[in-house]
Amino acid sequence: MRSQGIAEDELFSFLLSVKENDRRYRHVLSSMCTLPHPVAVRAMNLFIESNLGDPGLFEGTASLEALLVERLGALMHLPEACGYATSGGTESNLQALRMARREAGVRSPNVVVPESAHFSFEKACEILSLEMRVAPSDDMYRMDAEAAADLTDKNTISLVGVAGTTEYGVVDPIAALAEIASDHGTAFHVDAAFGGLVLPFLPESPLFDFQLEGVTSISIDPHKMGMSTIPVGCLLTRDPSMLCSLNVDTPYLTVKQEFTLAGTRSGGAVAGALAVIEHLGRDGFTAVVAECMANHRRLISGMAALGYPVIAEPKVNVAAFDCPLSPEGWQVSHTRHGHMRIVCMPHITTTIIEEFLKDIGDMHV
Amino acid sequence: MRSQGIAEDELFSFLLSVKENDRRYRHVLSSMCTLPHPVAVRAMNLFIESNLGDPGLFEGTASLEALLVERLGALMHLPEACGYATSGGTESNLQALRMARREAGVRSPNVVVPESAHFSFEKACEILSLEMRVAPSDDMYRMDAEAAADLTDKNTISLVGVAGTTEYGVVDPIAALAEIASDHGTAFHVDAAFGGLVLPFLPESPLFDFQLEGVTSISIDPHKMGMSTIPVGCLLTRDPSMLCSLNVDTPYLTVKQEFTLAGTRSGGAVAGALAVIEHLGRDGFTAVVAECMANHRRLISGMAALGYPVIAEPKVNVAAFDCPLSPEGWQVSHTRHGHMRIVCMPHITTTIIEEFLKDIGDMHV
Repeated sequence: MRSQGIAEDELFSFLLSVKENDRRYRHVLSSMCTLPHPVAVRAMNLFIESNLGDPGLFEGTASLEALLVERLGALMHLPEACGYATSGGTESNLQALRMARREAGVRSPNVVVPESAHFSFEKACEILSLEMRVAPSDDMYRMDAEAAADLTDKNTISLVGVAGTTEYGVVDPIAALAEIASDHGTAFHVDAAFGGLVLPFLPESPLFDFQLEGVTSISIDPHKMGMSTIPVGCLLTRDPSMLCSLNVDTPYLTVKQEFTLAGTRSGGAVAGALAVIEHLGRDGFTAVVAECMANHRRLISGMAALGYPVIAEPKVNVAAFDCPLSPEGWQVSHTRHGHMRIVCMPHITTTIIEEFLKDIGDMHV
Repeated sequence: MRSQGIAEDELFSFLLSVKENDRRYRHVLSSMCTLPHPVAVRAMNLFIESNLGDPGLFEGTASLEALLVERLGALMHLPEACGYATSGGTESNLQALRMARREAGVRSPNVVVPESAHFSFEKACEILSLEMRVAPSDDMYRMDAEAAADLTDKNTISLVGVAGTTEYGVVDPIAALAEIASDHGTAFHVDAAFGGLVLPFLPESPLFDFQLEGVTSISIDPHKMGMSTIPVGCLLTRDPSMLCSLNVDTPYLTVKQEFTLAGTRSGGAVAGALAVIEHLGRDGFTAVVAECMANHRRLISGMAALGYPVIAEPKVNVAAFDCPLSPEGWQVSHTRHGHMRIVCMPHITTTIIEEFLKDIGDMHV
C-alpha cells in the first residue's frame, strides 16, 4: 500500500485509463451478461449500503428480496416457492446439490448431470464430494433421458437438467427427467440460470419449471437476461424444508439462523434485480426477449445463407455454428466441440448482427 | 410478475418508502459493515457492467483485481501473494479449507478451529465434509494453542486462527499456532476478514500475517473495514499452487481455467475496493483506524465507569461487555456467552458514543 493516498482526480484518471482495456459490450457476442438496465443501476445505488447478511438491520431490503423470490417463483409457476438471492448460478447450483445431499443422507452420493452442464457442477461436485455421473447428449445436444435413467440408482441424490444450455441454447428433456426423478424419489434441480428469464416470455416453450411435479429446485439468474447489476442469482425450492435444512446458527446477528452460502450479501444488487422486474413487467420482458430472439433468428438464417448452419435448433438466444472463421474485432467463443458460439443478449442490436454477418461474409469470399 | 411494468417514478417512490424500513447506520453498533466510502461508490459505478468471471473481456478490471491482491498481499508482508477477490469472508474461508483438503488428500479430514471462529467455518466444514474440531478458548477468549496442538493429528488438513474475532475483538495466538502447523506440516489459515484492515494500522499489534512462516492463507475483507461496497472479500495464499489446485476447465470463456468459487463476479466492487486503498493509502487508513480505536477506547472507559467492564482486552475495535441493558433505539448485539457486543466502525463518531454512554447511564440510574 502507498503511504500517501492519491487524490480523487488522479485516481479516476487512472481508473478511466484502465477501463480502456475492458471490452465494450458492443462487439461481445460471447457473454451471458449484458449492460445493466438503468433502473437496476439506480436502485442498486439507492440500497448501496444494505447488507442482506444481517436482514434484521435492513428489513426494507429483506422485503425486496422476499418480493423478488415471489416474483420469480410465480414466473416458475409456484408463487409460494422458497428461495433467496445468491451470488449467481454457481452458488445456486452448489446449494441445490448441498440441500439434496443433506436430504438424501446416503453414504456414497452421486449426481446425474448432462454432458452439457455448466462447469459449475464440476466445482459443486468436487466441493461437496459427490460422484458426478455424466449422461451423454442426444444428437441435438440435449441430455439423453434414457441414459440418465440408467445412471440413476439408490445413491443418486439429485438429477440435474438444463433449461437453456450455455453452449447450444437447447432445453434438456425436463419433463422426462422429472418423471425419472419422481420414480426414484430423488431431487431434481433445473439449471435455468439463463433460460429462466427467456423461456417464460416466448410464444411457445417446453415445460421446465415447477409445473412439473418432479422439479424440486431451480436456478434463475437476474444478472444474466434479467439485466441486473452483478451479483444476483436466485435459488428457488419447492419445499421450504429443503432450504431450512441448510440452516446454521448465527450468533450476534439480527436473525438467529441462515441458510445462505455467503454471510454478507449485497442488498443493492437485489433491489436492482427487483426494480427491473417491476419496471418492465411481463410485457416489457416479452418485448426484450422478442428482440433478442429476432436477432438470434436473423443470425441463424444469415449464417446458414453463408454456408454455416446452426448446430442444434436452440430454444433460447444462444446459437452454435460449424464455422471455422475468427472474425477480427468480434468476441465470439467456442463450445467444447469447437463450434462457434454466439449469444444475442439485449446489447446486441439488429445493426450489430448485420455488421457481423457482413464481416463473416467478407472473410468467406 | 405484473403484466404491465410500473413507471420509473412510481417504482422509486415505492423503493424509497421501503428503504424507510432499513436501519440507518447511525445507531447501528453491531455491524462489521459500514457506509461505503464515496470513492468506492464512484469507482463501482464506473465499472458497473464489468464481469470478472470472464476476465479476458475485462482486462482492465482484471488488472485492478491483480493490483488489489498485490496491495493486500504487501500489507500482509508478502507482495507476491496469490489470491483473488471473493464475495466475502465466508467464500474465502471455504476456499481456504477446500485448498487444504485437496493438498492434504487424506481420507477422514479434520480441521482445528477456535471456539470463537465465525460460523462460516461451520458452513464450510459441513459443505466440505470436514470434521470440525473446536479448540477451547483461554480466559481471554483466545484460542488455547496447547489444546489446538492436542487436537491436531495426521488427518488435520488445516488449523484456523482468527486475527480480530467477531465477538471479542481479540487475536488468537497466531505465532504459536503457526509453529504447530509447521510442525505438523499442515496448512494454517488466518481469518483476518475484519482485523486484516485494522491491525496493520495500529502502533502496536501482534504478528498475524505471512511474516509467520506457518501461515499459508489469509482472509481479508475490503467490504468490512475497507469501506468498500458489498461484495468484496479477498483470499490470499502464500503458494500459487494452492490456488491453482482448485482450477476447473472453463470452456467458452476467455480464460481456460478458473479457481474461484463463483463464476460471474462483480468487477465494480473490486474497482471500489482498490479505489479506497489507493485514495486513502496507509496514512489515510491509519487515521480512520485511529479514530475508530479512540472511540472504542472511550466506549470501554465509559462503560467501565458505569460498572460494565470490558470482557476481554480487545486488539481491534470490537468490544464485549457484561451489561444486561438493552438501550432503546440502539442496535447492539450479543455474543454466544450473552455479552453485549459493540463494533466501533467508521460510521460511529465520538458524538454517537457519548450519546450511547449517556443512554446507558440513564438506564443504569
